[in-house]
Amino acid sequence: MRDITLGILGAGYWGPNLIRSFAETPGCEVRYVCDLRPELLAKISKRFHQVKVSTRFDDLLNDPEVDAIVIATPAATHAELAMRALSAGKHVLVEKPLAHEVEAGEKLVRFAETQKRILMVGHTFEYNPAVRKLHDIIRDPSFGDIVYLYSRRVNLGVLRQDVNALWNLAPHDVSIILYLFEEYPQYVSAQGLAHIRKGVEDVAFMYLEFPSGRIASVHVSWLDPSKDRTMTVIGSRRMVIYDDVDPEARLKIYDRGFEIESVMSGLDHADPSSYTYRVRPGDIIAPYIDWKEPLMIECRHFVEVIRNGGVPLTDGHNGLRVVRILAAATASMRQNGRRIEIPSLVKT
Amino acid sequence: MRDITLGILGAGYWGPNLIRSFAETPGCEVRYVCDLRPELLAKISKRFHQVKVSTRFDDLLNDPEVDAIVIATPAATHAELAMRALSAGKHVLVEKPLAHEVEAGEKLVRFAETQKRILMVGHTFEYNPAVRKLHDIIRDPSFGDIVYLYSRRVNLGVLRQDVNALWNLAPHDVSIILYLFEEYPQYVSAQGLAHIRKGVEDVAFMYLEFPSGRIASVHVSWLDPSKDRTMTVIGSRRMVIYDDVDPEARLKIYDRGFEIESVMSGLDHADPSSYTYRVRPGDIIAPYIDWKEPLMIECRHFVEVIRNGGVPLTDGHNGLRVVRILAAATASMRQNGRRIEIPSLVKT
Amino acid sequence: MRDITLGILGAGYWGPNLIRSFAETPGCEVRYVCDLRPELLAKISKRFHQVKVSTRFDDLLNDPEVDAIVIATPAATHAELAMRALSAGKHVLVEKPLAHEVEAGEKLVRFAETQKRILMVGHTFEYNPAVRKLHDIIRDPSFGDIVYLYSRRVNLGVLRQDVNALWNLAPHDVSIILYLFEEYPQYVSAQGLAHIRKGVEDVAFMYLEFPSGRIASVHVSWLDPSKDRTMTVIGSRRMVIYDDVDPEARLKIYDRGFEIESVMSGLDHADPSSYTYRVRPGDIIAPYIDWKEPLMIECRHFVEVIRNGGVPLTDGHNGLRVVRILAAATASMRQNGRRIEIPSLVKT
Amino acid sequence: MRDITLGILGAGYWGPNLIRSFAETPGCEVRYVCDLRPELLAKISKRFHQVKVSTRFDDLLNDPEVDAIVIATPAATHAELAMRALSAGKHVLVEKPLAHEVEAGEKLVRFAETQKRILMVGHTFEYNPAVRKLHDIIRDPSFGDIVYLYSRRVNLGVLRQDVNALWNLAPHDVSIILYLFEEYPQYVSAQGLAHIRKGVEDVAFMYLEFPSGRIASVHVSWLDPSKDRTMTVIGSRRMVIYDDVDPEARLKIYDRGFEIESVMSGLDHADPSSYTYRVRPGDIIAPYIDWKEPLMIECRHFVEVIRNGGVPLTDGHNGLRVVRILAAATASMRQNGRRIEIPSLVKT
Repeated sequence: MRDITLGILGAGYWGPNLIRSFAETPGCEVRYVCDLRPELLAKISKRFHQVKVSTRFDDLLNDPEVDAIVIATPAATHAELAMRALSAGKHVLVEKPLAHEVEAGEKLVRFAETQKRILMVGHTFEYNPAVRKLHDIIRDPSFGDIVYLYSRRVNLGVLRQDVNALWNLAPHDVSIILYLFEEYPQYVSAQGLAHIRKGVEDVAFMYLEFPSGRIASVHVSWLDPSKDRTMTVIGSRRMVIYDDVDPEARLKIYDRGFEIESVMSGLDHADPSSYTYRVRPGDIIAPYIDWKEPLMIECRHFVEVIRNGGVPLTDGHNGLRVVRILAAATASMRQNGRRIEIPSLVKT
Repeated sequence: MRDITLGILGAGYWGPNLIRSFAETPGCEVRYVCDLRPELLAKISKRFHQVKVSTRFDDLLNDPEVDAIVIATPAATHAELAMRALSAGKHVLVEKPLAHEVEAGEKLVRFAETQKRILMVGHTFEYNPAVRKLHDIIRDPSFGDIVYLYSRRVNLGVLRQDVNALWNLAPHDVSIILYLFEEYPQYVSAQGLAHIRKGVEDVAFMYLEFPSGRIASVHVSWLDPSKDRTMTVIGSRRMVIYDDVDPEARLKIYDRGFEIESVMSGLDHADPSSYTYRVRPGDIIAPYIDWKEPLMIECRHFVEVIRNGGVPLTDGHNGLRVVRILAAATASMRQNGRRIEIPSLVKT
Repeated sequence: MRDITLGILGAGYWGPNLIRSFAETPGCEVRYVCDLRPELLAKISKRFHQVKVSTRFDDLLNDPEVDAIVIATPAATHAELAMRALSAGKHVLVEKPLAHEVEAGEKLVRFAETQKRILMVGHTFEYNPAVRKLHDIIRDPSFGDIVYLYSRRVNLGVLRQDVNALWNLAPHDVSIILYLFEEYPQYVSAQGLAHIRKGVEDVAFMYLEFPSGRIASVHVSWLDPSKDRTMTVIGSRRMVIYDDVDPEARLKIYDRGFEIESVMSGLDHADPSSYTYRVRPGDIIAPYIDWKEPLMIECRHFVEVIRNGGVPLTDGHNGLRVVRILAAATASMRQNGRRIEIPSLVKT
Repeated sequence: MRDITLGILGAGYWGPNLIRSFAETPGCEVRYVCDLRPELLAKISKRFHQVKVSTRFDDLLNDPEVDAIVIATPAATHAELAMRALSAGKHVLVEKPLAHEVEAGEKLVRFAETQKRILMVGHTFEYNPAVRKLHDIIRDPSFGDIVYLYSRRVNLGVLRQDVNALWNLAPHDVSIILYLFEEYPQYVSAQGLAHIRKGVEDVAFMYLEFPSGRIASVHVSWLDPSKDRTMTVIGSRRMVIYDDVDPEARLKIYDRGFEIESVMSGLDHADPSSYTYRVRPGDIIAPYIDWKEPLMIECRHFVEVIRNGGVPLTDGHNGLRVVRILAAATASMRQNGRRIEIPSLVKT
C-alpha cells in the first residue's frame, strides 16, 4: 500500500518536531516542507535530506500525490491556510488553536464536512498517556464526584507577537478540561495583564463554571521564574495532581478527603449542617504510566484516520469548542472580568 | 520593673501557641487562660503549671494587674470580646481577622483610640523574617517595578464551621500583600465553591486590582491534597518565589526576565510594539534568612509596645484594611464574581 | 497507683526534649533535672515550673521515690553514670550510645541483670512509626529478598567535641539496620576524614557485610551543605526509600525491579548467565503512616516496662550490639579501612 | 576546505547519538555507520538517509577519504578496534572506557603516538558546561580548600552483560574527579555486589585517597529505584552540589561552613583543639549555566583537533588514567575491599 504523503507548512518553532515525528511514523512520507523563510528551509534540508523544501504553498497543493497538509504557522493564519488546503482536496492537521475567531472556525468545520476531508486539530495533550490515565482515574467510582480543577501553565518563555498568553497556552488547558470533564462550560470570566507588550496579555486567569456545578481555574503566563505545568483535580473521595514536568511521577493520586466525624447531639441527623468532619488521611500513589511521546501518537492517529477513515479524536468540532471558550474568555478579559455566558453548542 | 501581665482567651487550636510564646517572652507573665471548655483548661493546667485557668472572662477583666487580653476565640466573637476588654481598660491583641464585619471593626478601632488602649491584630506573617526580607527584595531598585503577585494557600486542613476558607486563610495573604505593595486595592472580584458544607466556601479565588495597575491573585482552600504556601512576585527585572514550607529556601530570587532583543528594521525605534524580546536568564539565589519564630517576634512586639508606647506594626487600622477587603470579596463572591470597588480608605 | 518518678541527667541539647516528653507521658512525674551548669538549670526552671533542679547527682540517687534515671550527658560519661544509677537501685534510660567502649557496655549490661533493674537505650528510631512500617514492608514476601541498604545521615550540624561523627550519628543507622535486617553483621570496614578538628572525624563511611550476603553502606557527616536523612533498601522485587525529612512521604515503595526478558537461544535454560533482563517498571506508593512522635512512644514504653515488667525493645543487649559494631568500625578507620571481623555475639 | 569524513562503529545504544551529533557538527560528514546487526543498520538508514551502512569494518578503513573512526561498541572490543583504526592511519574517538585492561590501554596510547594520529576518549562530562563551571567554582579562592567529594550515579537501568556497574558508570565519576581535583589518587578501595548476574557487580562503592589528603567516594548502581546523578564537593569555606538531572539548578553553591566561635579560656590560642566552632550560615546560589549539549561540544572538539592539530582535552593519557584507577578498584573489589596502591603515573 502506498504511503500517506504529507506536506508540512511552517518550519519555525514547532514544525521541526512535526517533521521528525511524521518521519518516524510508519506508513507515511513527509514529501514537502514549506516556509517563507529560506534560511529555515536550508536548516531543514541539512537535517532531513529526503524532504523537498519550498517557499510556495502551491507546490504542495498542486502535487496530486500529497494526501494531507500539516499546518504549523502562526495562529492568525491557521483558518485561511486550512481552507486553501481543504479546497485543494487535502486532509488537514492544523496546530492549535483551530482558528482565532469563532466564525472562521465554524466555516472551516463546515467546509471540511462538505469536502469530506479530515480536519484534525493538534491538541496534543489529548494524546498524552498521562492525561488519558488521569481521565480514567477521575472517572473511576473510587474518585467520587469531580469537584473542581485548577491548572497552572507558566514559565519564562517565548514571547509571542501574534497571540497573547491566553491563546498561546490555554488551548492546552481547555482541551484537557473538556476531555476530562466531558462537559461544556456555561460561564467564563477572565482577567489578564499586559506587561511587556501593550495589548498583548502575558498573564491570564480564567475561571470556568460548568452546568454540573464544577469549576475550573486556569492560570497561564509567559512571565514566570520557573516552569510549572501542574493540574490538580479535587474529587469528593480522592484527589490527583498531574505534573507534566515530573517524569518520575506525572500523576499522584492522594487517597484523602474529609469524612463525617460525628453528628452534633440533639440535632437532626438528616441535616448535613449538623455534621462535623475530619480529615481522612491515606496513601499517595504515583501510578506507572506506559509513556509514549504524545506527538508520535497524534501523528500516527492522523495517518491511520486518513488511511482507514473515521473521526479523529481531536476533530474540527473539538477544536471549535476550544475556540468558542477562548473567544468568550477574551470578551470577558476585555470587560474587566465580567462573567460571560458561553453560547450553547449547536452542532455546526 | 513589673512584668506585663496577660490573660489569654481561647485554649483551642491557636491558644496554646500563644501561651507558650508569651511564656517564653521576657518581661511578661501569662496569669490566666480562659475558655468555656473545662477539658481544655485541664490540659493547659497540666502543661503550664504556673497559669491560672478560668471559664469566666470576668476573672481576667476584674484583676487590676492584668494589663492586656489576648483573644484567640472563634472569629465571629473577636469584635465583641475585644470591646469588653477595652471597656475594662485592657490592651488587646486579637487574632486575625480583627472582626467579621466592617462596622464592628471600625467601632473597635475608634473605641481603642478613645480609650487610649493598644489594639493589635495577630497578622503574624508581617513579623515573619522571610516576609520582611521579601519586602526588602522587591523594594530594591534591582527588582524593577512590581508587576504582579500570586499566592496559593491550600491544604487538607481543619474544616472550620464558623468561617469559610476565605476568612480563615486569606487574611494572611491580604495582610502580606498590603505590607509588600504598600498600596490599597481599588477593585476585587472573588469566586468560591462550597463543597463539604452548604454555604461555607472550602475554596476561594480572589483577584485584587491596585491603582498602580498591579494585580494580586489569591487561591485559598481547605480541600487540597497537599500543603502549598507559595507566593510569587513578578518584577520587571527580577522575580521571587516565597515558599513558606521550604525551610532551606523560603525565598528564591530569580535574576531573570525579558530584554529587548532588537528593533524590527524600518520601524519606529520609539515604538515598543516594534521590539522583539528575548529571555534574559540568570542566577537563582536563596538568601540566608536569620530565622526567628514569627509568633515570638509578634509577642515580644506586643509586650514592648505596651511597655514603651508607640503604635504596633499591625494595629487596628491595619486589621481593618484587611477586613474591608475581605468583606468586599465576600460581596463579590455572593454575586458570582462581580468586580466590586473597594470603598476608599478614610481614616476611621 | 503512684506515678513513676524520674530524674533526668543533662539539660543540654537533648535533655529538654526528654523533659518535655516525659512531662506529657501519662503516669509519670519528672521530679529532678540535674546538670553541672546552673545557667541551663535556670532555663529549665523557667520553662518547667514543676521540676526541681540540682547540680548534684546524689540528690536524685538519694531520693527513694525516684524510680528511674534518664541520662542525656556527653557520650563518654554514659557508662559510668549509668553504673552509679543502677548501684543506687534505679532503672536507667541512657541516651545512645550505651557506652563508648565495649567492655564498659558489657559490664553495664551484666550489672543491670544482677541488679534486676531495667537498662534501656535511647535508640529512638526503633520507635519511629516510619521505621516500623519500613520493617513491615521489607519483611513482606512481596518485597522479595533484601539485597542491600544504603543510608546517608549528613548535615551542617553541631560539631561535637566529645565524639566523632561516627559515634554521634551512626548509632541511629546501625540500630535501624539491625532492627530491619534481624541479622548481625560479620565484617565492617570504615574510613573517615577529620577536617575541622584533628583526630575527630567529621565524615565517615562504613560498610557492613552480613552472613546472608547482604550489605549496608552508611555515610555520616557534620560537614554537609544540606540535611539528608535517607535510607534506601533494595529488594529483589521491590525497593523503598525512607526520607526522614519529608513529612508528606517518609516512605516511598517502588514496585520495580528487573525481570528475565529471555533466555538466549541455544543456551542452557537452567544457566542464569544465559538470561537477559529488562526493567520491570511499576507504581510508586507513599503509604500513609499513622505518625506519632518517636520520642513520646519511647518515653511511654520506658514507663510501661518499669510499671509492668518485661524487656524493653531497645534493651542493654541491643545497645551493646551497636557499640560492638561501632567499636569495630573505629578500629577499621584507624587502620585505613581494613576489613575487620566483628566478634561474634555471645550473650553477655 | 574539505569536510572531515567519519565512520562510526556501533549502532546500538549510544551510536545513534554520535551519528546525530556529528551530523549536526559543522565541517564534518558522517559517511559510514558500521555494525554487525543488519536490523540496526536498517533503522539508521531510515533515519539518516545520507549515511552509508555496512557490516564490514574494512569498508570504512579502506576508504582513503575517511579521516577518523568513532568507536561505540561494547567496552571489551574498544582497544582492539581502535588499534585496527590507528593501523589504517585513521584518527580515533573511542567511547569510554578507553580499554578494559591497563596493558591494552598503554599499548594503544603508545601506538597512537607512534602513528601520529589523534586518540581521543569520549569522557563526555569533561565537556559538560556544568562540570566546567563546577571546576571554576571550586578552584576559586572563595571556595577555600577542597576537602572531599562524594558522588552517586544510580538508577534502574540497562543491565549490561559485558561490563559491571563499576566499568559502565564509574568512568564518568573518575574522569570528572580527576578533572576537578587536578590530582591523581594514591589509594583505592572498592566493594561491590553482584545480585542479578553472578560475577557482574550491579552495585559498587569506591573510595579514593589523594596525596593531598582529599578523598572521593563514589557509589554506582544499576539496581536503584530512582535516578540520582549528584556530586557534592565540600570546601573549607563553601560547598556545592551538582545535580545532573535538575535542569533548573544543576549547581547549587552553599556559602556555608564552620567558623571558630571562641577559644576556650586559659588554653593555648595557637592550639586548634581548644577552639569551639559554630555553623556559618549563608546564601544558596544556583548560578546560571550557559547550557550546550556536552556531546555536541565533544564532537566539535574532535573535528577541530583533527583539522587544526593539538591535543584533545580527553586524550589517550586521560583515558588511560581512568582505566588504571578502575583496574585497581577492580583488584580491590576482588579482595573484599583491600586498600590498593595505585601505580604511580609514568608517562607511557
